[in-house]
Amino acid sequence: MERRGGLAIWRQIAQELEAQIDAGALRPGAQLPTEAALAQRYGVNRHTARRAVADLEDRGLVTVAQGRGTFVCTELIDYRLSRRTRFSENIRRNKQTPGGKLLAAAVVQADRAIAERLQIPIGANVQRLDSLRTADGVPINLSHQHFPGDRFPGLADAVERHGAITPALAEYGVGDYTRRETRLSARPASRREARLLALAEGAPVLVAENLNVDPDGRPVEVSQTLYAADRVQLTVEP
Amino acid sequence: MERRGGLAIWRQIAQELEAQIDAGALRPGAQLPTEAALAQRYGVNRHTARRAVADLEDRGLVTVAQGRGTFVCTELIDYRLSRRTRFSENIRRNKQTPGGKLLAAAVVQADRAIAERLQIPIGANVQRLDSLRTADGVPINLSHQHFPGDRFPGLADAVERHGAITPALAEYGVGDYTRRETRLSARPASRREARLLALAEGAPVLVAENLNVDPDGRPVEVSQTLYAADRVQLTVEP
Repeated sequence: MERRGGLAIWRQIAQELEAQIDAGALRPGAQLPTEAALAQRYGVNRHTARRAVADLEDRGLVTVAQGRGTFVCTELIDYRLSRRTRFSENIRRNKQTPGGKLLAAAVVQADRAIAERLQIPIGANVQRLDSLRTADGVPINLSHQHFPGDRFPGLADAVERHGAITPALAEYGVGDYTRRETRLSARPASRREARLLALAEGAPVLVAENLNVDPDGRPVEVSQTLYAADRVQLTVEP
Repeated sequence: MERRGGLAIWRQIAQELEAQIDAGALRPGAQLPTEAALAQRYGVNRHTARRAVADLEDRGLVTVAQGRGTFVCTELIDYRLSRRTRFSENIRRNKQTPGGKLLAAAVVQADRAIAERLQIPIGANVQRLDSLRTADGVPINLSHQHFPGDRFPGLADAVERHGAITPALAEYGVGDYTRRETRLSARPASRREARLLALAEGAPVLVAENLNVDPDGRPVEVSQTLYAADRVQLTVEP
């Protein structure tokens, strides 16, 4: 490969591989040729091939699995965190079929953090719902939602009946609710989370902590949602 | 330990450990007693102790390092992604001292993704700046910023002179710029990123892709910022 237009050779190789990924010649999940094979194909030394691969890795296009090889990253679902974030709309906009199941429902007592955010006393009843949500059957997120228990008695049953939160809350006169604030962090999945989200143990999850309020500004729900980070990208607009 | 107020015993143990973390009796980075020690202290079996620890892990309060033990998570810096996100303000609000250094500056050619977002032709000049930013000397993020090269010739020198982006852009008549959109994802740090951010290899980074525009709505900068996920939590308000 010849130096072209002042562009370093490793960058040209990276651009060519990127073009192959864009064109679908290298599909998500496909293994990249080894550094030795790339070096031979482009007539460069292995150091140059390695630098091209490192550039793709830095830009999140490929991922290096130690000892197994380098793989093209799966395309991320673009999930919009708007004021009215609804899972099903986000997945349908991505031309996939949303699904989900309620894993557990329990009335628990508010700990300090939950009580503060829901503006209820510590120890007050909280309806907790744990759900797993999918797109085309693939796990996307795992959520832990907390609602003031005294305001929404029997909420779990209503959610089961409707198969969704929004119509269940409407039964209690909450016709609308909006996102006030989201805190985002990332951490390795715990063993249980990895199993539910079909992730490798220790693979990262993107954690979104949400506060939803009704039109009067009263907290309706605090939730923690764990996204499989290899499948989802969150978009926020200020 | 006795069952109290309908609260499962493992949950009581988890609450007591959480109270110790809140009170600072168990400080960030401190090792939690082993499951065997917790079982003995509370007079429960190991399964119950394990469930309490798993609950703290699920809620992000402790982290289990395989083979090494369980540790209290370091308190996260609360980093606000507002329309005018400035690193130094965020760190000072957290009562820490911001720092940083320019790792590399280069004029490169726009690839497809950068060209689209900056609204310039593919192959046009782009000023790229790579920086590492710190709080009290601890690495916080690693950023790759891209500016239209023809609009901001010599920007790298101006940034070096001022030690910051905002006053450097003012030299070119850009008195203000705001965040239009941010895309958030998470992935394991590459080897190079882990070294620069002082992370364990494969530890997660929180990746924020930002688009900044001037008051006329013209793109001024696209950047990718990698946050050390064990140190930072991003807050976004809609």
